[in-house]
Amino acid sequence: MSKTRLEAFSDAVIAIVLTIMVLELKVPHGSDLGSLVPLLPVMLSYVLSFVHIGIYWNNHHHMLHLAKKVNGAVLWANMHLLFWLSLVPFVTGWMGENHFETIPVAGYGVVMLMAGVAYYILARILVSHHGKDSDLARAFGKDFKGIISVMLYTVAILVSVLNPWISITLYVVVAITWFIPDRRAERVLNERNG
Amino acid sequence: MSKTRLEAFSDAVIAIVLTIMVLELKVPHGSDLGSLVPLLPVMLSYVLSFVHIGIYWNNHHHMLHLAKKVNGAVLWANMHLLFWLSLVPFVTGWMGENHFETIPVAGYGVVMLMAGVAYYILARILVSHHGKDSDLARAFGKDFKGIISVMLYTVAILVSVLNPWISITLYVVVAITWFIPDRRAERVLNERNG
Amino acid sequence: MSKTRLEAFSDAVIAIVLTIMVLELKVPHGSDLGSLVPLLPVMLSYVLSFVHIGIYWNNHHHMLHLAKKVNGAVLWANMHLLFWLSLVPFVTGWMGENHFETIPVAGYGVVMLMAGVAYYILARILVSHHGKDSDLARAFGKDFKGIISVMLYTVAILVSVLNPWISITLYVVVAITWFIPDRRAERVLNERNG
Amino acid sequence: MSKTRLEAFSDAVIAIVLTIMVLELKVPHGSDLGSLVPLLPVMLSYVLSFVHIGIYWNNHHHMLHLAKKVNGAVLWANMHLLFWLSLVPFVTGWMGENHFETIPVAGYGVVMLMAGVAYYILARILVSHHGKDSDLARAFGKDFKGIISVMLYTVAILVSVLNPWISITLYVVVAITWFIPDRRAERVLNERNG
Repeated sequence: MSKTRLEAFSDAVIAIVLTIMVLELKVPHGSDLGSLVPLLPVMLSYVLSFVHIGIYWNNHHHMLHLAKKVNGAVLWANMHLLFWLSLVPFVTGWMGENHFETIPVAGYGVVMLMAGVAYYILARILVSHHGKDSDLARAFGKDFKGIISVMLYTVAILVSVLNPWISITLYVVVAITWFIPDRRAERVLNERNG
Repeated sequence: MSKTRLEAFSDAVIAIVLTIMVLELKVPHGSDLGSLVPLLPVMLSYVLSFVHIGIYWNNHHHMLHLAKKVNGAVLWANMHLLFWLSLVPFVTGWMGENHFETIPVAGYGVVMLMAGVAYYILARILVSHHGKDSDLARAFGKDFKGIISVMLYTVAILVSVLNPWISITLYVVVAITWFIPDRRAERVLNERNG
Repeated sequence: MSKTRLEAFSDAVIAIVLTIMVLELKVPHGSDLGSLVPLLPVMLSYVLSFVHIGIYWNNHHHMLHLAKKVNGAVLWANMHLLFWLSLVPFVTGWMGENHFETIPVAGYGVVMLMAGVAYYILARILVSHHGKDSDLARAFGKDFKGIISVMLYTVAILVSVLNPWISITLYVVVAITWFIPDRRAERVLNERNG
Repeated sequence: MSKTRLEAFSDAVIAIVLTIMVLELKVPHGSDLGSLVPLLPVMLSYVLSFVHIGIYWNNHHHMLHLAKKVNGAVLWANMHLLFWLSLVPFVTGWMGENHFETIPVAGYGVVMLMAGVAYYILARILVSHHGKDSDLARAFGKDFKGIISVMLYTVAILVSVLNPWISITLYVVVAITWFIPDRRAERVLNERNG
C-alpha cells in the first residue's frame, strides 16, 4: 500500500489547519495602530501554534520519509493525530481571545498533549510495522523527545492553575526542543548513505 | 487517463471538508470550563463526522489503489460523492447546534445516506470499467457493507421521529462496521502478491 | 518545466473554491424543516456552482493531461483562470441570498463569462506553445464549445434584465453542453493509442 | 531528503491563502449595483494581493524546480515564508475595509516586506546548500530583484505617512517588476539544455 496519498492528505489537512488559524485574527474596524493592540494576544497565540504545527509537519515529513509501507492501523493512527491537530485553531483562538487565562491555557495544553500522544502512537505503530532492524526503529526507537514533550505538556496543564504564563513558557520550551527535528532521521539516512 | 489527479483532488476536498467542520466550533467568549458546556453537542457531532469522513477517505484510498484507469463517468461519480461529503459540515453543525433534535438528526442521515449511495455508484462504475475479473471486482464485487450501510441510514432516518438517539446509535454502528475498511482490498492484494 | 506543480496548485485552489462555497449555507438556528426553506435558493445556487466548478476541474484535468510542457505564460494564464474561479463563491452566495434577482444573476454571469474567457486564453496559449500538430491542437483546435459558452453567458447577462430565470436556464444549458467534457481529449488519446 | 512534499505543502498553504482572501469579500445584503460599491476597495485590495501571491507561487515554483535537495534549514526558511504569506489575507482585508488609509497601507507593506525578506533568506539558504557552481547559484546568485523589492517596500512603508496611494503605486511597481518571474531560471535551464 502506497504512502504517497497518506502524505498528500496529511499535508492538505495540516496546511488547512495552519491557514484557517489566521481567520481568528479578525480584521479590526479601526485604521489606527491602537486597533491592533487587542489583537496582540491572538497574534502571539497564532505564532505559538504556527510553530507547533510547523514542527509537527516537519517531524511527520521526516518520519514518513523513512517509512516504506503503511497499513490500516497507520492510516487510523494518522487520522487520530490529524483530529487533535484540527482542534489547534479552536484552542488557539480561545487562548488568544481570553488573554492567556488559566482554563484556555490548560485547554491548549490538553490538545497539544493529546496531539503528542497521537504522534507517539503513530510512531510506535510505524516502528512495529517496519521491524526492529528498520531505519525507522533506529531513528525513533527510544523517542526520548516524544516522552519528554508529553511530560512537559502534562506539567504545563497542572501549573496553569498557579500561573498560566509558566505553562506558556513550557509550551515554548517544548517547541525549542523540537525545533531542529531532523537530526535522528538525518543521522540514520547519512549512516545508510555513507 | 491518469488517476493521480483524481486522487489528489479528492484528497484536497476531503481534507477541507474535514477541517472546516471545526469552524463550527465557535470560540467561546468566556474563559471558564462552563463556557465549553454548550459546545459539547457540537463537539460530539464533530467527532462523529470526523470519523465518518475518515472512513470515506480510507475507503476511497483503498478503492482507488486497486483502480488502474479512470474515465469521464468515474470523474463525475467521484464529483457526485464529493458533493454529498461537502454537505457534511452543514448537517454536522445543524445537528450539533440543535442538540440532536429529530429533523437535524434525520437531515444528517439523509446526507450520509446520499454519500453512501454516491460511494456505491462510484464503486459500481469503477468495477464495470475494470471488468469482472479485475482485482476491483473481486474486492468490491458484492459490497454487502455498502448495501447494509445504506439500509441502516434509511432506518436511522425513519426512527429519528421516535427517538433521535436511536438514529445516532445507528450512525455509530455504521461507523464501527466500516472501521477496519481495508480487509477486502488487502485480501485481494495479498492473494495477488502471495 | 514540469506541469505537475501547476496541476497540484490548481487542484488545491479549485478544491478550496468548491468547498468554501458551502460556508455560505449558514447553519439555521431552528431545528424544523421550515428553517431549511430560506436556504433553498442558496442550495440551488450552490448546486449550480458545484457543477460548474466540477466541469472546470474536469476540463482542466483533460487539457493539462494532453499538455507536455508549460511556460511562464501558461502559469499566468492559469492564475488568471483561478482568479475568476475564486470569485465564484462570492457571486454564488450573492445570487442565492437575493433569490435570483436581476443584478446578482447578471453578476454571476459576468464571473462565469470571465472564467470562460480565461479558460479560452489558457487553451490558446497551451495550443500555441505545443504547435499546430500537437495532440492539444487537434483536441482544442477549434474550441467551438468554449466560444459558444462565452456567447451564451453574454446572452444570459443581457436577458437577466428581462427575466433572471432565463439567464439561470442558460447557465444550466451551458453546464449540460459541457457535462461530458472528455470526448475531444479522449478521441485524440484513442487515435494515438489505436 | 525529497523536495516533493515541501512543494506539495507550500502549494497547499499558498492555495489556501489565495482562496480564503475572498472570504473578506462579504456577500452584500442588497441586490442592486450600489451594494457592490462599498466592496470596491476590498476588491482592489484582493486583486493586488492575488497578483502578489501568484508571483510568490511562480517564483517558488521556479526556485524549487532548480533545487535538487532540501534540508532542515530549508524546511524552516520555507515555513517562515509561509508564515508571512499567511498574514496577507489579514492585511488585505484591513487595507480594503479601511479604504487604503495610512496605517493599514503601511501594515500591508510590513507584511510584504517581511515576506520578501523571508523569500530572500530561503533563496540564500538554498543557494548555499547547493554550492556556488549550482544552477541555483547561477540563477539566484545576485538576486538584484529581491533586494530592490525589499527596498521599494521599505520606501512604500515610509511614504504611506505622506500619501498612502504612493505606497500602493510602489506595491504595483514591485508586482510589475516580478511579473515575468522565470527569465533567470529559464535562462539557466536553457543554457543547460542548449
